[in-house]
Amino acid sequence: MMQAVSRQTLQRLPDYLNCIKSLQEKGILTVSAKTVAEILGLGEIQVRKDLASVSTGGKPKIGYVTTELIKDLEIYLGYHDSRDAVLVGAGKLGRALLSYGGFKEYGLNIVAAFDTKGEEIENDSTYSKIMSIDCLADLCRRLKIRIGIITVPSAYAQEVCDMLVQNGVLAIWNFAPTHLHVPANILVKNENMAASLAVLSQHLSKKLLEEH
Amino acid sequence: MMQAVSRQTLQRLPDYLNCIKSLQEKGILTVSAKTVAEILGLGEIQVRKDLASVSTGGKPKIGYVTTELIKDLEIYLGYHDSRDAVLVGAGKLGRALLSYGGFKEYGLNIVAAFDTKGEEIENDSTYSKIMSIDCLADLCRRLKIRIGIITVPSAYAQEVCDMLVQNGVLAIWNFAPTHLHVPANILVKNENMAASLAVLSQHLSKKLLEEH
Repeated sequence: MMQAVSRQTLQRLPDYLNCIKSLQEKGILTVSAKTVAEILGLGEIQVRKDLASVSTGGKPKIGYVTTELIKDLEIYLGYHDSRDAVLVGAGKLGRALLSYGGFKEYGLNIVAAFDTKGEEIENDSTYSKIMSIDCLADLCRRLKIRIGIITVPSAYAQEVCDMLVQNGVLAIWNFAPTHLHVPANILVKNENMAASLAVLSQHLSKKLLEEH
Repeated sequence: MMQAVSRQTLQRLPDYLNCIKSLQEKGILTVSAKTVAEILGLGEIQVRKDLASVSTGGKPKIGYVTTELIKDLEIYLGYHDSRDAVLVGAGKLGRALLSYGGFKEYGLNIVAAFDTKGEEIENDSTYSKIMSIDCLADLCRRLKIRIGIITVPSAYAQEVCDMLVQNGVLAIWNFAPTHLHVPANILVKNENMAASLAVLSQHLSKKLLEEH
């Protein structure tokens, strides 16, 4: 049975995994919480606690066997179970995510993409998987899809979200820069690039003012 | 002179802008903090305070003139000043971001992309802007580039980050799932898709267990 961890811990686990994998690539056979903490610039106690919550392999003075800790982290993060997802909105961002293809490493498998302009795009060989939004309900139910990725314009995001939830989706990855209302058992994870850009831009304005 | 706002406020501003723009599209001429708060599911006092820090146009009982508030938010967020950036790492994710093209709306202009395999890719018409990493220093200095986007594999991210900082970059948008060490005056904004996927995946595991 998996131990429950806080969302903060959970979000750090992929960083640990990456860090430990790069140590493995350098031929390092055992790894301690202290080493990981130093590389990532985190507190040692926090890292020790986080790692202990996903792996029982830690030994005093030795640490963890690198390969085993990697396996435990990957299992905990579900990278070995493939998660089927659908993507709704095949505009610029949606197509970029479809063409990315790197989510498979994390166990996410985009099985279909939908757009209002389904038929038009279906003839385009590059995006052969894009279907009309009219097929969404049927496909989600038939394939028991539990993850929906929303990349439609803000104005349509809530409507798409409702449609996904009605058809069995339990977790929404929302790239539309808008707030979504969902029932309590549904998780929404917002990916807000505009917010990130605002932070970068503001820092720049401040620094450039200082320069003058 | 722009009023300083907290990072939390700053990250909410693009959401306000989007919300108010969609109200404008519906023909709504004035907008109150209360309306925005209700749509976004935020506290009214917070929204009132946030909006007051970027616009002086708010009037009791009437609220803000929609077009003016949009203008004030866009100016504050720097969407009217174009920010030149370079992208380093033209792998799957880098190419996806380059093909996205939607950052221009937020004032971000990717003027060049670099990769170790610069020459090979230069012949590919789709990615005509990808140059060899050897040209990075010269180009960043010549064009006074202040924003760097990192999409290289984790193992190379720190090296690329150091190179950008040495050549005048002040703000780093880091898509590599690794922690970067930078001088105090440099801002790093991490975009951690793996962490987001971990949160989604974990929620799903929990809900699917409950179903059985």
